[in-house]
Amino acid sequence: MKLYTSRLAPNPRRVTIFLAEKGIEVPTVEIDLVKKENLVPAFLGRNPLGRVPVLEFDDGSHLSESIAICRYFEATHPEPALFGTGARAQADVEMWNRRMEFEVLGNVSGCFRHTHAYWKDRIEQVGDYGELCRRTLEERMKWLDGELSGRPYIAGERFTVADITAVTAFDLGKVAKIRIPEALSNLTAWYATVSARPSVAATSPARKSG
Amino acid sequence: MKLYTSRLAPNPRRVTIFLAEKGIEVPTVEIDLVKKENLVPAFLGRNPLGRVPVLEFDDGSHLSESIAICRYFEATHPEPALFGTGARAQADVEMWNRRMEFEVLGNVSGCFRHTHAYWKDRIEQVGDYGELCRRTLEERMKWLDGELSGRPYIAGERFTVADITAVTAFDLGKVAKIRIPEALSNLTAWYATVSARPSVAATSPARKSG
Repeated sequence: MKLYTSRLAPNPRRVTIFLAEKGIEVPTVEIDLVKKENLVPAFLGRNPLGRVPVLEFDDGSHLSESIAICRYFEATHPEPALFGTGARAQADVEMWNRRMEFEVLGNVSGCFRHTHAYWKDRIEQVGDYGELCRRTLEERMKWLDGELSGRPYIAGERFTVADITAVTAFDLGKVAKIRIPEALSNLTAWYATVSARPSVAATSPARKSG
Repeated sequence: MKLYTSRLAPNPRRVTIFLAEKGIEVPTVEIDLVKKENLVPAFLGRNPLGRVPVLEFDDGSHLSESIAICRYFEATHPEPALFGTGARAQADVEMWNRRMEFEVLGNVSGCFRHTHAYWKDRIEQVGDYGELCRRTLEERMKWLDGELSGRPYIAGERFTVADITAVTAFDLGKVAKIRIPEALSNLTAWYATVSARPSVAATSPARKSG
């Protein structure tokens, strides 16, 4: 088994944090996105969409999509449960992870991709859409701050994959000059708590290398 | 248990098809999106994001997000399995459902929301982004046509939630003048096969009412 990943990108980071929380070690191959190693034919054979991460199995087959990879490891290594336990709790975690993807990561990513110079020659940028995402995210942060008034983690009393998605999104946001306003005290406290976890701190884009 | 839903919207339709495939009946409450019944305080108490569907449990708690609701019923009514069986197959279905969401439904929805008059007074439209989604979708349809050359359904030999997401997306696309090109014969054949399923045909936006 082998994980094609990239240290600088948010989706591979979700899997890296997930594996660290589970205590699972998987051999990795670093793909340099700046050098567009994800777009060469060999890589497109692993994922025709040219995205990391990709999990390669020993039979040569591949699995893409961060959350699909996380779910695979949740099934093979159930403890600690990061997708919830039992039908209702699992559905709640799914709801919260999706809300973090669509409302937070989706808007952060939309803002980053459509406003940042990194993407200028990589995609067709629509600046107005990027700025719309930025404003939408401001509203979603207020909503999320209210949700966090009554519980420590995104989906409830326990750290789950929804926290991984959210913290990864907010860290990505920094490159697009997105910050959690200090006035949002619940969200700010949640971010500090989650950022201090070893799995998250060790993979922070802000950490010093070496 | 009660399902707040809307006959005309794609996400509630995913749940309706899913329940029909499982043979599960849940009492429903129709929410009129044209009249913005999803934005009144009573509804926002069920889902602060103002979106359908919402599943209301007998204890008064709520579950949003179509796929979270589908997963709940997959756990309580496992047969027929629509999210796959076993760790690897379930991960593959998750990958394909997410690809259908991000690459197909996401682009269809982006095109519809940012180009159609229905959304003009409902969201801040960015027409250029809608047209970018339309062009991106054209590329994704070619890719998907190639994928379908070797298998009958999106995720493999069996009908799964990934097919539900995809057919719902393509049907939504019709309102934004998106059509599957006839030249994409595999995708065209898949669409015809899936559209003929009773669960899908009975909920088609094109069906005659009454």
